[in-house]
Amino acid sequence: MNLRRSGCPINLTLETFGDRWSLIILRDIMFGGTRRSFRSLLTESMEGIASNILADRLKRLTANGLLSRSGDPGHKQKAIYALTSKAIDLVPLMVAMGSWGLRHTPASMELSIRAQVLEDGGSQLWDAFMDELQYLHLGALQPSDSVFAKMQSAYESALVEKAGSRVWLPAL
Amino acid sequence: MNLRRSGCPINLTLETFGDRWSLIILRDIMFGGTRRSFRSLLTESMEGIASNILADRLKRLTANGLLSRSGDPGHKQKAIYALTSKAIDLVPLMVAMGSWGLRHTPASMELSIRAQVLEDGGSQLWDAFMDELQYLHLGALQPSDSVFAKMQSAYESALVEKAGSRVWLPAL
Repeated sequence: MNLRRSGCPINLTLETFGDRWSLIILRDIMFGGTRRSFRSLLTESMEGIASNILADRLKRLTANGLLSRSGDPGHKQKAIYALTSKAIDLVPLMVAMGSWGLRHTPASMELSIRAQVLEDGGSQLWDAFMDELQYLHLGALQPSDSVFAKMQSAYESALVEKAGSRVWLPAL
Repeated sequence: MNLRRSGCPINLTLETFGDRWSLIILRDIMFGGTRRSFRSLLTESMEGIASNILADRLKRLTANGLLSRSGDPGHKQKAIYALTSKAIDLVPLMVAMGSWGLRHTPASMELSIRAQVLEDGGSQLWDAFMDELQYLHLGALQPSDSVFAKMQSAYESALVEKAGSRVWLPAL
C-alpha cells in the first residue's frame, strides 16, 4: 500500500469519490429529480447496487460534503439525501462522462437521450440544469424553465419510438 | 455480487475504467507529452503507483481499446504505450475533473495551472489539445500551435513565482 499522493486536481477529484459506485449514486440522485431516500436509491437502482455498498458510499459522500442527510437518525431506510452545491458542480463532469459513453460504449438508446440533450444544449443548458438542482435540493428559487421536463419529454419520445418500432418490425 | 447493469452511458463509461488508477494512468500519458514506457510510468508516477497495479491496469486499458502497446513483447519494462482516439476523446472529461478539483479540493497551485489553462481556453483549446495528442500518439499532422507549450510555460511561470515567494517570505 503506497500512500504517496499528489496535489493534482484530477487526482484529488478521483480521491474524493473513491470508486464508481459513488459516482453512480450521485448520478441517481442528480437525475432522479428530487431528494432521495435510502430505500428508493436501493430499490430503484438500475445497476442493482447492494445494500451494504449503498450505505457505505452514502456515508462517505456525506462525510466528503457531497450529500446532506436529513430524517430520523434511528431509521436508516428513512434517511433522505440531497445534493450539496459541491455535488451540483459535478454536472459538467457527468455530461462529459455521458458524451464519451454515447460515442464509445454500447449505451442503450433510451438511456442515452438525456446525455444527448445535455450535450446538444452546451454550457448554457448545464447552467440551467444546475439552477434547477439548486432549487430541488437546496431550496433556491424555482427557475422558469425546467431542464428535467425537457429531458423527460425527449426520454418519453424515445420510449414511444422504440415501442412503435417493435410493433412494426417483423417478429424474430 | 450483483451483476445487473444498465445501458446508461455514464455507467458504461465508469465500467470501462474500473477504478481511479486507470484514469490516473491515462492522465499521466495524456499530460506526459508523449508515448510512455512502462518504466517511466512507474518511476515518474506522482501518485506512487505500485508495479502490479500499473501492469494490471495497462493490460485492461489496452484490452478496452484505450491504449495501444508496442515494443518487445518479451520485455515488459520496455513496452511503449500510446493513447488511442478513444482515449484522446477523454480530454473534456479530464478537463471537467480538473475544473471541479480546482474549486473543491486542496489542489496545489503549481499542479493546478494546466487545469486552469484548459478551463480558461474552453472547447476550442480542448480541440487543439486533442489535435496535438493525435499528432503525438497517432502520427497525425503536427498542429501549428502547441497547447503543451502553452501549459508548460504557464506551469514554469507558476514554479518561478512559487520559488520567488519563498525567497522573499520571512522564514517560519
